[in-house]
Amino acid sequence: MLNHCGTSRIAGCQFTLFPMSDAFVEIILSTLEEVDTSKVWKQTDDVTTCIRGKQVHIFDVTKAIFLHAAKTGEHVAMSGTFSIGCPGDTAGDVYMDESNQLMNEPSSSNIQQQAGCKFSLYPLGREDYMDKIYQQIDWSKTTEVTVSHAHYATRLDGDVHDIFRVLQHSFEQVQAVVSHVTMSFTISANSPSQQTVKEN
Amino acid sequence: MLNHCGTSRIAGCQFTLFPMSDAFVEIILSTLEEVDTSKVWKQTDDVTTCIRGKQVHIFDVTKAIFLHAAKTGEHVAMSGTFSIGCPGDTAGDVYMDESNQLMNEPSSSNIQQQAGCKFSLYPLGREDYMDKIYQQIDWSKTTEVTVSHAHYATRLDGDVHDIFRVLQHSFEQVQAVVSHVTMSFTISANSPSQQTVKEN
Repeated sequence: MLNHCGTSRIAGCQFTLFPMSDAFVEIILSTLEEVDTSKVWKQTDDVTTCIRGKQVHIFDVTKAIFLHAAKTGEHVAMSGTFSIGCPGDTAGDVYMDESNQLMNEPSSSNIQQQAGCKFSLYPLGREDYMDKIYQQIDWSKTTEVTVSHAHYATRLDGDVHDIFRVLQHSFEQVQAVVSHVTMSFTISANSPSQQTVKEN
Repeated sequence: MLNHCGTSRIAGCQFTLFPMSDAFVEIILSTLEEVDTSKVWKQTDDVTTCIRGKQVHIFDVTKAIFLHAAKTGEHVAMSGTFSIGCPGDTAGDVYMDESNQLMNEPSSSNIQQQAGCKFSLYPLGREDYMDKIYQQIDWSKTTEVTVSHAHYATRLDGDVHDIFRVLQHSFEQVQAVVSHVTMSFTISANSPSQQTVKEN
């Protein structure tokens, strides 16, 4: 049974941006200056940043942060976990009253960036959770991204906008029918590594 | 009901090491040279590394990789997800026949390193999953690490050996009673940031 009774629910993402560069501080700070986070609650410490608010803004902000950091040309990655419906979370923050107008899409849409991403969906508290996961993997194969199987995760390759569209859609679809959902991801751009898989 | 009937189960970790340095390639390569991964199956691509095998070796190898990278003094972080009992996973790999002797503890134990870590346990397919999570959070407060609450995660601060002991114990305890368990984590060392929380 869902516990949000038709009202909008507060979502969040706990994430870290990793610029593999001596200039990591400058890249993080300049990225945060370019991204509008006014529609999300935000808290940063030395391990992660947590943002909370409407789902549309959570995905708008995380995508914008990754894109603005990646456009520096440096090897950057971002890891984190999206979450909604956590029984330990508090709802009703003022950020839920924001409009749905995306603050970062105008500047993000100008940035073209290829990336690789691995993500895992975790619908919690449900015995049929694997069905929900497989439904989203099947759907993702109908999109513009290249989908492949990895241990414990699904790999998406393509344009960052397309990758985030798959992440957001998968998350939105599952949370519509499962109260508590989390989704872990790691996305990487400008890696000097060959995409070839190395196995020992 | 558990599906492993008393036999050892294959565990795994999908993770990425992030050295925030121009020398990230050298740090990753020199770290991998110092860490003995002979007792785990390993696959690396440009987004993550996946290791699989006995639980004891999964934690031995991930801790050793983080410690050897952190001892360079650079700001390094590691993000990933431990997993066991995934219905999509294959069991019975030859790596399950390895002895329990830890290959990296002798060299790891010489490295003293403070770190901050955020982790989240996800016992899957169970309606009582929050109880399992709270049991481990309560237990972690009896250990050497400093435990604090974060949105969607639990924060551990202290020596890296103690942090990994908490991660491993929590994972082992939950997987003993829940078939499919995942645990996401981000651990960070040598950050130039103040540990002070910044909130907007």
